[in-house]
Amino acid sequence: MSVPDVETTRRRGRRPGSPNTREAVLTAARAAFAEHGYRKATIRSIARDAGVDPSLVIQFFTSKEGLFRASLELLIGSPEEVAARFAAADGTLGRRLATFYFGLWERPDTRPALTAMALSAASEDEARRAVRGLMARHFVGVIGREIGVEQASRRVPLAATQMLGMAFLRYVVPTDPMASMPVDDVVGLLAPVLDRYLTDDLDEFLTAELIPLSVPGPAGS
Amino acid sequence: MSVPDVETTRRRGRRPGSPNTREAVLTAARAAFAEHGYRKATIRSIARDAGVDPSLVIQFFTSKEGLFRASLELLIGSPEEVAARFAAADGTLGRRLATFYFGLWERPDTRPALTAMALSAASEDEARRAVRGLMARHFVGVIGREIGVEQASRRVPLAATQMLGMAFLRYVVPTDPMASMPVDDVVGLLAPVLDRYLTDDLDEFLTAELIPLSVPGPAGS
Repeated sequence: MSVPDVETTRRRGRRPGSPNTREAVLTAARAAFAEHGYRKATIRSIARDAGVDPSLVIQFFTSKEGLFRASLELLIGSPEEVAARFAAADGTLGRRLATFYFGLWERPDTRPALTAMALSAASEDEARRAVRGLMARHFVGVIGREIGVEQASRRVPLAATQMLGMAFLRYVVPTDPMASMPVDDVVGLLAPVLDRYLTDDLDEFLTAELIPLSVPGPAGS
Repeated sequence: MSVPDVETTRRRGRRPGSPNTREAVLTAARAAFAEHGYRKATIRSIARDAGVDPSLVIQFFTSKEGLFRASLELLIGSPEEVAARFAAADGTLGRRLATFYFGLWERPDTRPALTAMALSAASEDEARRAVRGLMARHFVGVIGREIGVEQASRRVPLAATQMLGMAFLRYVVPTDPMASMPVDDVVGLLAPVLDRYLTDDLDEFLTAELIPLSVPGPAGS
């Protein structure tokens, strides 16, 4: 990624409060998180790339975590936009969810950011919190409230295990046959599995007594 | 992890060729990979922890990649041992595979190493090659050859997507309900999904023309 000269970008004279400024910061943030990962991306360098003062980034987004969250929302859309796309898609709920999710990964401009998001969530608490919040609002919230799936807070994360594992072995650590399958076949293969998690009778599993595990953090955290 | 004093361990006088030496190196390697990840673990520090000369590590394992591969095999067992455990387990093939896989993750002594293995494979080419080789020999090979599943090289990786995604959201980024479910429920929930991938008629998907994707590496690789 080329870093624009600070003086040049400052001379463009973006006004602090304009929507363009917020958008420029988010575009720079998405590129920085995708290229460097959560830990190594800094507010200072993102502000420089966007041609604004770092204090303005804090004013808009409060913290690096807030900036990460907002740049994820820029990728995925607002909860209302997600709901509208689900409503517009064809097929079972599982097929619609897979179509939306893998549609995001198939776009060359969003794939590096989604990869960085998954890897950052594995090793950084702040990124993990942002990804969890996104999953709650954009997926559990939409599928529970808008589509009326009961126990969405338990069912949607189960569906996420299958989608995430497929994304990991298709895009992050490309492994055949997943990496070479047409995306329509990925959607067709996973749709019945996602329907199982989202709509089948899973009472046997979902009412089990929950025993919190003591799980150590990953290496390097 | 406490690092034993070099002189103390040297004075124990392990003979270079003994099985104990190889085992000591593998134990130190497993701890180092789990604690530091693939990139930051070094042959020099592993040799020091094991109380041997670094040249001996190279003599045994050729390279860091070879050492990583051997320490994974130590976790999982030989292909023959994996086949024997599959044969001894009850239920459908999907249930037996899930029982074996999540049994590995449930052991507190192997979980940090498996986490490090998954994260290292996401960002390091050598670790990725080692994990792929392990998957080919220990899972595709065993399930294809010993159990007689056709198209195992396509079916087992599909099953891996579901198991890996579950392991990620249960152990690496602990997320409910996965993190709090009893492991028997995890196995019961996934078994029919794995059976679908391993034994259902998937010709519609598995004979599709393969179009290799151009997938960029993850951030930081």
